[in-house]
Amino acid sequence: MAFGWIDGQAESRRRAGLVRTLRPRAAGTPLLDLASNDYLGLTRHPEVVEGAARAARTWGGGSTGSRLVTGTTELHAELERELAGFCGFEAALVFSSGYAANLAAVTALAPHGSLVVSDAGNHASLIDGCRLARGTTQVAAHADPDAVRKALSGHDGPAVAVSDTVFSVDGDAAPLAGLAGACREHGAGLVLDDAHGLGVLGDGGRGAPHAAGLAGADDVVVTVTLSKSLGSQGGAVLGPSRVIDHLVNAARTFIFDTGLAPAAAGAALAALRLLRREPGRAARAGAVARALHATLTAAGLEAVRPDAAVVSVRAPSPEQAVRWAADCRAAGLSVGCFRPPSVPDGIPRLRLTARADLSGAEIERAVRVIGETRP
Amino acid sequence: MAFGWIDGQAESRRRAGLVRTLRPRAAGTPLLDLASNDYLGLTRHPEVVEGAARAARTWGGGSTGSRLVTGTTELHAELERELAGFCGFEAALVFSSGYAANLAAVTALAPHGSLVVSDAGNHASLIDGCRLARGTTQVAAHADPDAVRKALSGHDGPAVAVSDTVFSVDGDAAPLAGLAGACREHGAGLVLDDAHGLGVLGDGGRGAPHAAGLAGADDVVVTVTLSKSLGSQGGAVLGPSRVIDHLVNAARTFIFDTGLAPAAAGAALAALRLLRREPGRAARAGAVARALHATLTAAGLEAVRPDAAVVSVRAPSPEQAVRWAADCRAAGLSVGCFRPPSVPDGIPRLRLTARADLSGAEIERAVRVIGETRP
Repeated sequence: MAFGWIDGQAESRRRAGLVRTLRPRAAGTPLLDLASNDYLGLTRHPEVVEGAARAARTWGGGSTGSRLVTGTTELHAELERELAGFCGFEAALVFSSGYAANLAAVTALAPHGSLVVSDAGNHASLIDGCRLARGTTQVAAHADPDAVRKALSGHDGPAVAVSDTVFSVDGDAAPLAGLAGACREHGAGLVLDDAHGLGVLGDGGRGAPHAAGLAGADDVVVTVTLSKSLGSQGGAVLGPSRVIDHLVNAARTFIFDTGLAPAAAGAALAALRLLRREPGRAARAGAVARALHATLTAAGLEAVRPDAAVVSVRAPSPEQAVRWAADCRAAGLSVGCFRPPSVPDGIPRLRLTARADLSGAEIERAVRVIGETRP
Repeated sequence: MAFGWIDGQAESRRRAGLVRTLRPRAAGTPLLDLASNDYLGLTRHPEVVEGAARAARTWGGGSTGSRLVTGTTELHAELERELAGFCGFEAALVFSSGYAANLAAVTALAPHGSLVVSDAGNHASLIDGCRLARGTTQVAAHADPDAVRKALSGHDGPAVAVSDTVFSVDGDAAPLAGLAGACREHGAGLVLDDAHGLGVLGDGGRGAPHAAGLAGADDVVVTVTLSKSLGSQGGAVLGPSRVIDHLVNAARTFIFDTGLAPAAAGAALAALRLLRREPGRAARAGAVARALHATLTAAGLEAVRPDAAVVSVRAPSPEQAVRWAADCRAAGLSVGCFRPPSVPDGIPRLRLTARADLSGAEIERAVRVIGETRP
């Protein structure tokens, strides 16, 4: 049978404890959420919801076409202007997802004959970008500017180094100043995915590149997502106008994709304006993460020190990680459970996200449940 | 300078008449729209808009995470059930875009050692899926079941043939019965992108695979978009439950992407229910396309006979295509302008879409403008 070979793979996954199933959630849930990427707790904020609803009423349910045909509304342009301005870049380009934005940035900036140096811990979308790019990819050791320097030396022609600013699994930050230094020594560009930095790091949530003094540099391109701190859907590439114009002309996931739905653009714009008005939300997310880590550590759990809003707790095996997360859920706590292939090093983890709107009592409760259900 | 090489590419594009720029549109425009993919004219339908707004109010501005963590709501599950039921498949899986759905279907169904036979006219997202897949790709001549048969013969191991059902550029239909026959002779699967068929072809808009008697077959997988006939954003894969479960576990653009925004799911679900209640909309889109083609031909223009709702008119050169489209716009008519690299054969075109809600007078007006502005 045509797809019969799938059954063997399913059986292997079952044996390895790696089966994934979908668990649709209800609109109102009593679970305490430490699993979502809603870092600033904005996705249900009335202004964000109203931003989505108003945009749908004004522009319709969809953008109706490619951004190059009918899919660019004045709302998209407004979001791009404000996002670029907030993060300190000359221009921005909005995509239907962060995944699409990463595919676009990497493929368009790595032409034939170029070199891409990619951090070993990079997100799947950056890896797929490298695989689609016409340039050659070299994987560099995780968070290691010297490895990037070494990979770049000797290459002649266009080159970029590509890295997450905050790695999704462990929540650790990339050494941005070191990476920029290595790139500049070799005239290479630096492409940074700030999906987990925007809204959390930098002055008022302007992101990790802004905090590192890299915003607006003519050799730095940043990708962000609208679906985490900004509580919506979509992604964007920020950078020099020259690079953004190039993406408009060369990036396949821009040219051949329908533009982001107006409701998503409207929700993201409302969240961005909220963040600009209430910059303390960003610092609060970081403070909650540090409090969560301190409380976990005090309770004897092995957690990675967070650089942003992600706190990772290692689990002994995939099966035990799944059971641990299920036991947390049964006790009223929603946590992420990351297993292969979602972890680059193969180590299963509970992944906790520190929302800016978590109270001290909620942090205590979460840590108590995690400790009590520990395998 | 790091991105200095971009300037040379920009200059080459300028010389070739291939520069693309964004033209943000206003919410209220007097232009007659024959450029969008809003085939059924539903994107601004009050029920679709209200579907988006209600979903945002109920679920928030975003889905908050991967579909495997917090990004699956009961709304996503409802949309998947109704979409699968409508199109006649066992199960469905919703993605943030049709692009992501195509990357998922092709990569997950083309493992190491497998063969993918891809139509020469396939959409960019299918091509990128082939490039990302671990299997080997063979490109087959356009719309040619014998070429597919030949490519499949001799291959041992999993194989799929991949094709658009309606090709975006010329609006021509793939020979689905012939493709299915070729695949079945060799035990290969058939992956069909029905982005331009759903809502237009088949009984009440159930799509081209349904019309060809392929819906629900255990060797057929269909991808659709929610951003064309359904007036929203997103994509979906439809197929046997075994395949859908496999995608949940293996498709990187499912696992590592944030789930579709609730507003987009809500808008698509409302459009789907509207289409089910008013099945005549589908036939009307096809009838408008045929009327548009007949009127163009009667006016002496060279247009491709439409199999669905896309009508393509060839232009002499990229520059003239751009000027032709601009002259149409100046005369109150919005048409698509497709140039390299958006056309697989390099031939520039005006691309007209036949919305179900175009009146006879609007068709006449459109054709008059196109004729009067002809280069």
